[in-house]
Amino acid sequence: MATLTVPHPLPPVDDDCERLRKAFQDEAAIISILAHRNANQRSSIRQTYFETYGEDLLKALDSELSGDFGRAVHLWTLHPAERDALVAYEAIRKNTTSSYYVLLEIASARTSRELFQARENYHARFKRSLEEDVAHHTTGDFRKLLVPLVSAYRYDGPEVNMGLANSEAIILHEKILEKADNHEELIRILTTRSKAQLSATLNHYKDQFGNNINKDLKTDPKDDFLALLRTTIKCLTSPEKYFEKVVRFSIKGLGTDEEALTRVVVTRAEVDMKRVIEEYYRRNSVPLETDIKGDTSGDYERMLLALLGHHNG
Amino acid sequence: MATLTVPHPLPPVDDDCERLRKAFQDEAAIISILAHRNANQRSSIRQTYFETYGEDLLKALDSELSGDFGRAVHLWTLHPAERDALVAYEAIRKNTTSSYYVLLEIASARTSRELFQARENYHARFKRSLEEDVAHHTTGDFRKLLVPLVSAYRYDGPEVNMGLANSEAIILHEKILEKADNHEELIRILTTRSKAQLSATLNHYKDQFGNNINKDLKTDPKDDFLALLRTTIKCLTSPEKYFEKVVRFSIKGLGTDEEALTRVVVTRAEVDMKRVIEEYYRRNSVPLETDIKGDTSGDYERMLLALLGHHNG
Repeated sequence: MATLTVPHPLPPVDDDCERLRKAFQDEAAIISILAHRNANQRSSIRQTYFETYGEDLLKALDSELSGDFGRAVHLWTLHPAERDALVAYEAIRKNTTSSYYVLLEIASARTSRELFQARENYHARFKRSLEEDVAHHTTGDFRKLLVPLVSAYRYDGPEVNMGLANSEAIILHEKILEKADNHEELIRILTTRSKAQLSATLNHYKDQFGNNINKDLKTDPKDDFLALLRTTIKCLTSPEKYFEKVVRFSIKGLGTDEEALTRVVVTRAEVDMKRVIEEYYRRNSVPLETDIKGDTSGDYERMLLALLGHHNG
Repeated sequence: MATLTVPHPLPPVDDDCERLRKAFQDEAAIISILAHRNANQRSSIRQTYFETYGEDLLKALDSELSGDFGRAVHLWTLHPAERDALVAYEAIRKNTTSSYYVLLEIASARTSRELFQARENYHARFKRSLEEDVAHHTTGDFRKLLVPLVSAYRYDGPEVNMGLANSEAIILHEKILEKADNHEELIRILTTRSKAQLSATLNHYKDQFGNNINKDLKTDPKDDFLALLRTTIKCLTSPEKYFEKVVRFSIKGLGTDEEALTRVVVTRAEVDMKRVIEEYYRRNSVPLETDIKGDTSGDYERMLLALLGHHNG
């Protein structure tokens, strides 16, 4: 369900490096190579480039490229775990409400192994732990949700305990009605149960109590914490719908939120971007490609479209 | 600082397996082999044993051995990460106050990598996550401390931020005086900071406020949660003192707590048991060996002494 396209046969890594070395004034060439190599291939290119020219490809790209295009190329070239560590770090430094959403996305839309690899990379690059920085820079209910989210190493097997799904659906319903303990039980279940188990619990919830849980968490639409809870549930259980919404909000309205648009395209192109595109068309009746063309331009537009599977050169 | 002794030259793995196969009625032979092989060597023996005889060595041992000796051999034969997963699981199932201490020990006295490997093994064996079970089976303040403890992946480099150590020492002092938020800030600092950073913070605390932090956390000696907090601090910052105390309490008084004694000897023999022995002598003016001989007997005694570095044959 990835949109990334990789050429067959794949050119030798040495050739990619040589073409990149010559291509720093030629953005189309950069796109034609990097936007069509997967994470392992990009890692090989970076390594070979360093061995051949004694310079980090990423630094060479940064010194030539700028703006939204430069940012997209930079994030894309990174290994996914390095990218997650960087994006999480930047979000924590900004420390705005939107930072919480970036953190929950990294914590919830990755496999357990991928999230752990992001935490390892955070150690290596920033000399401290991801959860340490999240805990230090958040407070109150936000901390109570975000710290266990980023610290989780969820079981990711398919086994589901239906009895538990039933009993925890009842707990959730009771606690939401009581607004108990700042939703301590809801946070426990959301942050520790496997995604398969959580889906079963939320299905039981809907079957027994009539509403989707997110509807019952909408009693106060202006409550920032409830909004974050609802988004976490969406990101954990229906990632393609979550990403569709992030992309939609980044495009609709005044101006474009390039930060969010780039993040989604770059992080999902190798994963499930096809499903996000399908979901986008279903929800908006316009192809995502058309909306991206309307809202972006130049090399940035070409880079995004290449990652969505279009060949530009 | 391990007490484990391994023969030079090491016998071939095949020979070890063959001797073990013949030795199931001969406890001395089992001790003479297994109690003198390190974790990787024991793993090789288990693997080769399985390949040669089509049977798990551990099951073969379990069917022949019993009691405290059987338990010690079983735990010792496991890979440390498998053992931690099993011991944590059993503690959660028992769900007594002493379970909390076992969990904090596994979470605090391991390297970040070792704790993560225990979590991986927990997935593989129990089809759910360690933090999921801890969160499910604890409540209130105990949950607030134990879940982040077992979920942590602490930075373990040597870098210390002295400014942060200073400011967090002040925060800790203020919050302890106020008894604020069930020690939320204390829990954050204890469960997320690297051990080096935490030691620096607690040194600042002592320098600035005159007392060891654990003295200030002793306002109510009967408060179980404060006791758990103090023990966590001790285990994180002075593991050899923590383990000395666990061993001392397991031996002193009426009867012996073989569960605790076995756990410490088996988990520390390959790590820092020499320092625990030194600490024991300093604190009790009696060698640990002497007290173990006084409190245990037979093959169990011989197994513990072998792990403490004595050769029995």
